[in-house]
Amino acid sequence: MDLAIRKGTVVTAAGTFQADIGVQGAQVMLLGREVPAADRELDAAGLYVLPGGIDVHTHLGRLRPFQGVDDFRTGTRAAAAGGVTTICEYVIHPRDTSLASQVEQWLAQGREQSIVDFGLHLHIGDPRPEVLNEMPALVEAGYTSFKVFMNRNFDSRVREYLTALERAGALGALTCIHCEDESIIGHLTDNLLGQGKTDVRYFAQSRPAFSEAVATARAVAFAEATGAPVYIVHLSSAAALEVTRRARARGLPVYVETRPIYLYLTRERFDQPGKEGNKYVGYPPLRDSEDVSALWDGLRNGDIQTVATDHVGLSFAPKAEPPDFSRIPAGMSNLETLVPMLYSEGVAKGRISLPRFVELIATNPARLFGMFPRKGTIAIGSDADLVLFDPSVQVTIQAEQMHSQADYDVYEGFTVQGWPKVVLSRGQVIFQDGRVVGRPGQGQFIPRERFGGL
Amino acid sequence: MDLAIRKGTVVTAAGTFQADIGVQGAQVMLLGREVPAADRELDAAGLYVLPGGIDVHTHLGRLRPFQGVDDFRTGTRAAAAGGVTTICEYVIHPRDTSLASQVEQWLAQGREQSIVDFGLHLHIGDPRPEVLNEMPALVEAGYTSFKVFMNRNFDSRVREYLTALERAGALGALTCIHCEDESIIGHLTDNLLGQGKTDVRYFAQSRPAFSEAVATARAVAFAEATGAPVYIVHLSSAAALEVTRRARARGLPVYVETRPIYLYLTRERFDQPGKEGNKYVGYPPLRDSEDVSALWDGLRNGDIQTVATDHVGLSFAPKAEPPDFSRIPAGMSNLETLVPMLYSEGVAKGRISLPRFVELIATNPARLFGMFPRKGTIAIGSDADLVLFDPSVQVTIQAEQMHSQADYDVYEGFTVQGWPKVVLSRGQVIFQDGRVVGRPGQGQFIPRERFGGL
Amino acid sequence: MDLAIRKGTVVTAAGTFQADIGVQGAQVMLLGREVPAADRELDAAGLYVLPGGIDVHTHLGRLRPFQGVDDFRTGTRAAAAGGVTTICEYVIHPRDTSLASQVEQWLAQGREQSIVDFGLHLHIGDPRPEVLNEMPALVEAGYTSFKVFMNRNFDSRVREYLTALERAGALGALTCIHCEDESIIGHLTDNLLGQGKTDVRYFAQSRPAFSEAVATARAVAFAEATGAPVYIVHLSSAAALEVTRRARARGLPVYVETRPIYLYLTRERFDQPGKEGNKYVGYPPLRDSEDVSALWDGLRNGDIQTVATDHVGLSFAPKAEPPDFSRIPAGMSNLETLVPMLYSEGVAKGRISLPRFVELIATNPARLFGMFPRKGTIAIGSDADLVLFDPSVQVTIQAEQMHSQADYDVYEGFTVQGWPKVVLSRGQVIFQDGRVVGRPGQGQFIPRERFGGL
Amino acid sequence: MDLAIRKGTVVTAAGTFQADIGVQGAQVMLLGREVPAADRELDAAGLYVLPGGIDVHTHLGRLRPFQGVDDFRTGTRAAAAGGVTTICEYVIHPRDTSLASQVEQWLAQGREQSIVDFGLHLHIGDPRPEVLNEMPALVEAGYTSFKVFMNRNFDSRVREYLTALERAGALGALTCIHCEDESIIGHLTDNLLGQGKTDVRYFAQSRPAFSEAVATARAVAFAEATGAPVYIVHLSSAAALEVTRRARARGLPVYVETRPIYLYLTRERFDQPGKEGNKYVGYPPLRDSEDVSALWDGLRNGDIQTVATDHVGLSFAPKAEPPDFSRIPAGMSNLETLVPMLYSEGVAKGRISLPRFVELIATNPARLFGMFPRKGTIAIGSDADLVLFDPSVQVTIQAEQMHSQADYDVYEGFTVQGWPKVVLSRGQVIFQDGRVVGRPGQGQFIPRERFGGL
Repeated sequence: MDLAIRKGTVVTAAGTFQADIGVQGAQVMLLGREVPAADRELDAAGLYVLPGGIDVHTHLGRLRPFQGVDDFRTGTRAAAAGGVTTICEYVIHPRDTSLASQVEQWLAQGREQSIVDFGLHLHIGDPRPEVLNEMPALVEAGYTSFKVFMNRNFDSRVREYLTALERAGALGALTCIHCEDESIIGHLTDNLLGQGKTDVRYFAQSRPAFSEAVATARAVAFAEATGAPVYIVHLSSAAALEVTRRARARGLPVYVETRPIYLYLTRERFDQPGKEGNKYVGYPPLRDSEDVSALWDGLRNGDIQTVATDHVGLSFAPKAEPPDFSRIPAGMSNLETLVPMLYSEGVAKGRISLPRFVELIATNPARLFGMFPRKGTIAIGSDADLVLFDPSVQVTIQAEQMHSQADYDVYEGFTVQGWPKVVLSRGQVIFQDGRVVGRPGQGQFIPRERFGGL
Repeated sequence: MDLAIRKGTVVTAAGTFQADIGVQGAQVMLLGREVPAADRELDAAGLYVLPGGIDVHTHLGRLRPFQGVDDFRTGTRAAAAGGVTTICEYVIHPRDTSLASQVEQWLAQGREQSIVDFGLHLHIGDPRPEVLNEMPALVEAGYTSFKVFMNRNFDSRVREYLTALERAGALGALTCIHCEDESIIGHLTDNLLGQGKTDVRYFAQSRPAFSEAVATARAVAFAEATGAPVYIVHLSSAAALEVTRRARARGLPVYVETRPIYLYLTRERFDQPGKEGNKYVGYPPLRDSEDVSALWDGLRNGDIQTVATDHVGLSFAPKAEPPDFSRIPAGMSNLETLVPMLYSEGVAKGRISLPRFVELIATNPARLFGMFPRKGTIAIGSDADLVLFDPSVQVTIQAEQMHSQADYDVYEGFTVQGWPKVVLSRGQVIFQDGRVVGRPGQGQFIPRERFGGL
Repeated sequence: MDLAIRKGTVVTAAGTFQADIGVQGAQVMLLGREVPAADRELDAAGLYVLPGGIDVHTHLGRLRPFQGVDDFRTGTRAAAAGGVTTICEYVIHPRDTSLASQVEQWLAQGREQSIVDFGLHLHIGDPRPEVLNEMPALVEAGYTSFKVFMNRNFDSRVREYLTALERAGALGALTCIHCEDESIIGHLTDNLLGQGKTDVRYFAQSRPAFSEAVATARAVAFAEATGAPVYIVHLSSAAALEVTRRARARGLPVYVETRPIYLYLTRERFDQPGKEGNKYVGYPPLRDSEDVSALWDGLRNGDIQTVATDHVGLSFAPKAEPPDFSRIPAGMSNLETLVPMLYSEGVAKGRISLPRFVELIATNPARLFGMFPRKGTIAIGSDADLVLFDPSVQVTIQAEQMHSQADYDVYEGFTVQGWPKVVLSRGQVIFQDGRVVGRPGQGQFIPRERFGGL
Repeated sequence: MDLAIRKGTVVTAAGTFQADIGVQGAQVMLLGREVPAADRELDAAGLYVLPGGIDVHTHLGRLRPFQGVDDFRTGTRAAAAGGVTTICEYVIHPRDTSLASQVEQWLAQGREQSIVDFGLHLHIGDPRPEVLNEMPALVEAGYTSFKVFMNRNFDSRVREYLTALERAGALGALTCIHCEDESIIGHLTDNLLGQGKTDVRYFAQSRPAFSEAVATARAVAFAEATGAPVYIVHLSSAAALEVTRRARARGLPVYVETRPIYLYLTRERFDQPGKEGNKYVGYPPLRDSEDVSALWDGLRNGDIQTVATDHVGLSFAPKAEPPDFSRIPAGMSNLETLVPMLYSEGVAKGRISLPRFVELIATNPARLFGMFPRKGTIAIGSDADLVLFDPSVQVTIQAEQMHSQADYDVYEGFTVQGWPKVVLSRGQVIFQDGRVVGRPGQGQFIPRERFGGL
């Protein structure tokens, strides 16, 4: 045995149990009350042993028009330090490019730089027939999820997107949809700007919950029209959640992701003095406390299946500069805090159970995106992507101590209960006692299986 | 006094009462237990005296690309014969035309041919800035309602339509919206046709209730985004009704029209042998019995505010010819039966009360479309548009006895309880004892007031 | 003609029109642009002429265990002064009494003291077989509505009440139900008091919206089980309204009354210093601003059909004395303000239209409770119960100027736009220019017709 | 190692994996790709290894007024043969008895006769203070769940039951509630019988879905009033499911069990000729196909958390005898088929996934009822309650081959895909290749932990 992890409390989506873990090569090979001696031993007494976190929503590739300061290197340092051992990165697809060529670039960067394993979702930014014809080979090659933005360049190409969605479903791929109504938010934004309301305190007003809810209703109708499963990314509001709840109650294959910021912050952040509010700009905007409460209920009762970050490594300067709220680059750094914040605010505060927590940040992402049981659980034959999580430490978030290159953190000053102590990727320690020891390039590309439901 | 109508049971939206009616010129000038002798006397003993029916959804102008056999002359003969004394006709607006020029043509036809009074709604088929700039003057001139089709040429021009809707709201106009999702029905239709499913029995499948419901949800969101009131035309399904009910419960200015065929017929009609099913093709399609039942509940409890026909005078031949269901001309003749069918199936069968019946076919249409109190009620100063309705006669519907030029009737063979005996338009008898005596050109154009809610 | 009312704007549920009104004896006999000279003339120029208000929820009989300071005499003075020309009073039925004997006492008091016309609802406080056997004769005699309290002595007698409800439905009577869950509010109240939380600021907590909503859900289920129509009295919360909306959407015969205080006040009133909060105690308690907003939406869109006061003439002393919130006598004086407050807050502020206002305070109450068309509208043959309402005056509410004997008013200090100038009951002036001139005993008992829906 | 189970596909709620299992004594001690040789070896190649099924709803104690033919001995033979290794039996509590004395009798029978492990829920049939005072000691002793029937002797004792529920919540116990409205079903039943409608084809009508839905709404309100978690037993209808869905969406601690018969059968069964329909009588009755479909959606999306049988071993004779439907003994034998039917109709037909299946019949029951992780999963330290399940066999259900003493089976003639091959209870084989080899008395009483959510 290469490695034994002893006396930890193993946590899976099915529950917790005391066990030693034996790792051989990259995989968990033994679980037992006591396992034989191994070449390397880790003491997990007093710690939870969790499956590595999976963040299925990142933007690290330095290839987009408006990129941030993080790349796969720095972004996955943050991941590793926060207990995330797999990411799914969105390959962005600009007009007039092929999917394959975009994939190639992302794949090259990931392979060269990534410290943790990574899958790639394929954005479809230009759903012309040639592009759709690329889909079968790409699905075959393990790119089993696509992405559609309803908030841009969508309304004039709905028919093409319906074809894409139907094709994805038929191929066994899951389609991730950003649900905000392009036309409504465009209309409201132009109205506000036209009235001179350029400050970030008008931002939330420009993209109201009802614009998210109606876009979500359309995504649900598209699923019904095509028979294809859809995955709503970063759902933020009670109104949109109600739409998905009704869809799921009718048996439609609709899945829901939320995003950490919607669980911990509210729109009052936009009202802070100066440019401070700009820091919190992402799409959709922060919502009200009623929405926050509805999302927690959804995490607890199963209406929401995953939490993922939409991490973009953005510093304050580019967010503070723009002349109006509509031009503030969207997104923020929050990959490193995904796992500890959800543990602290969710489990430690009694809102969700430990198994549910693991389900949200590991098991469900792995299952929905075709990486299960290789990823997402602690089981015989699974990759030894493991987090030895210390529930007893307290950490106060400070941007300078985070591994992202971004110079601010939206949770600055939050005190978090619990933090990863050791993180392993396929049996190798990549983070220990505050230091990232994994190397860029150590992360592997994960070709993913076809969608098989939850 | 020019005319006295004696001993009838007057029915308004507020209730019923026994009274004589005195008419001076075009207007009701006296209501009393007994009114003085007049030049002309009508005996209404045993009859209901109703305000003239108002059909706010007709297509009679012979100016459309695919016109039917009726024009204002024959169409309003049918109206008069059925107790409809006012219609609101849709002026169709093809691409690259001005609203004003279209209005002119419709107005000319109406003035020349119409037997009953008429208002004109303005379709916006090409919402370019020049067209939107025509709106203020047209609203000022009494064209206080517009029409948007979401089922064609919509998805690529949503932003322009949002501007149009907002403009309409600001001008005090009501916007009528045909709610079916263009992209979804296009997608499903192409799929069905591609599978060789061209028969009319696939028609309903090509435009499912969920495509109506999601379009309705968008219309509601557009109302919320613009603050403009919207009027959903010919709502046909329980699912779409549920959308409007929730919107109205939240206080949004959303109004609902249904159409006779959805109250009396179900989709099984499309399964009849041969081309028989083609007769019933309209947009949206006939639905299920659960939908019928939900619509009746909506008529009774106030969730639906109007019933209107979408009358198009189409004969069987052009409906039977097309090679596939998607090319069957949509619409059918049903103006003449609007009032008696709703009385018979609604009031006589105990589903709705007499005042509610009058509200649906007269008062609400008049109020929503700025013709009240001139039209839509029996009150001092109102136009003497009156129907002496005999609840005791039974009529079996036969196409050849209908006044439309269409050669079939969707209710062929239905036995109806109650029929108009005398119909007056502004104090003039236009129909009496089975004969239309009104003359083309007798109908006036009704400039309408701005929208003032219900 | 005995009386002519000239140049007013007549308002009915169907709309408004300019007309003179001719009254002969007790009835409206003529409506016209100009009516012949009469013995008495009233100038209504600049005034609205409304059908007299109908308050279908009063407690004036001085026969209850815990009576207030008003009786039919003082209570109907307040009514007359506020434009209410008909009340429906609840005959209270204590255990071990017969309905008939109770009716007799109430009837005697009403006939002797009432200034305005009155009907009597029959509370069933003891639904034993002998009592239920009294129902047919009483319905026949014009007592066509019954009342059930779910908040007391109910849970142990549900079967008997189901029988009563079914009987009422079969007889053509409407059953009014007070919907609060007896057991839940008892449980919560005892818990609070047990914790020493006796102050009125805990009152709302003792009777939460969910206890109203679940009782309303039971009332709906009882309607479904028995086929009998039900009328939910003084509905106060968005949650309960949602229950009735769903019931009505399913076609169930469920009708909804709300009460003025829920439209103008919120639960913060209970947090005022000293015993001030006790003034506002009624069942159910005041709710939140979200509830207020939902009720206004319901008034506008038709989900709520009536507004009635539950008037009890209570002075401050008996409300201030009790040692804990559960013993504060429930109810308050608010009959006089019913009509002007709803006009001011509703019509003048643009929340509801004039016809809707008349529908809520006159037409619907009359129709639901079998007094239409005698009461509730202005039509030929209707009782000349008329309010000449001056929309231009402003009145600041002060308890000492109100006609109730109660020494405080819950709207003290509110400024109201519009107030009755002249009020007529069956053609007789009973209030004019600030003075009640009607005499006790002038009001008649109104035997009511069986329930016929809306 | 005492036992090695080799080459099976281990299934837990978190997923599936290939592993050998090592059992030492009563517990799973090792999971590995290959485990060391053991005293006994079982070959699981081609089989699923599932955690033993848990049926949390049985009636086997021969102590009730109307007992069936099964006792712990025959009932747990059926359990073992069907892959159920733990049951939770309801101790019935008649009026005027103590809980403790009832527990003692049930415990004695279980210990003497049960082949599989068992927990005991405590029915509270007489919630007087002395009984409620027994609760703390019983919870302490491992009886951490209680049962309330809303369908009998409830409406007159709601306050006492609210106290019991609150007490249970405070003690950390979960309260199971039978949700049917006692008064409504009593009323409807008496009406039907009074009309001579005694045949079983009127049975479903006597207990309609709305009577279940409103009772469920009350149970939800009771949870809200007391803060105590509630568990809705054998939920059968879409309407009731909608009530629980809304409650859970609001964050209330409401959990839902359904029952096999509602997933596989519809009310048409009651219309069979002769007394055949009587076989299917249980409370609530079978519902419509729309309900069946809604329940499956609920199993899939997480709105329903458990499936349990409500097994009562009843033969045909006592069900066929009664003179009317209301006296047919409720319940039926269906314990043995719980696991294979849900696998066959659920997993094999693609309606639910394998992990979800395990969650429903093992993990969730164990977690909700305080037996986790000892029961309900396959993990280190868990009891070796294991089912080697052969998905390849087909079995046609025949009553005579079932182990219940009942002489008929509601699924007679159904062909089931998959059946247990070997069943182990705490490491001991109790069923193998068609033969029950476990001995009465081998089953142990399981004291259960306090409720800790899911």
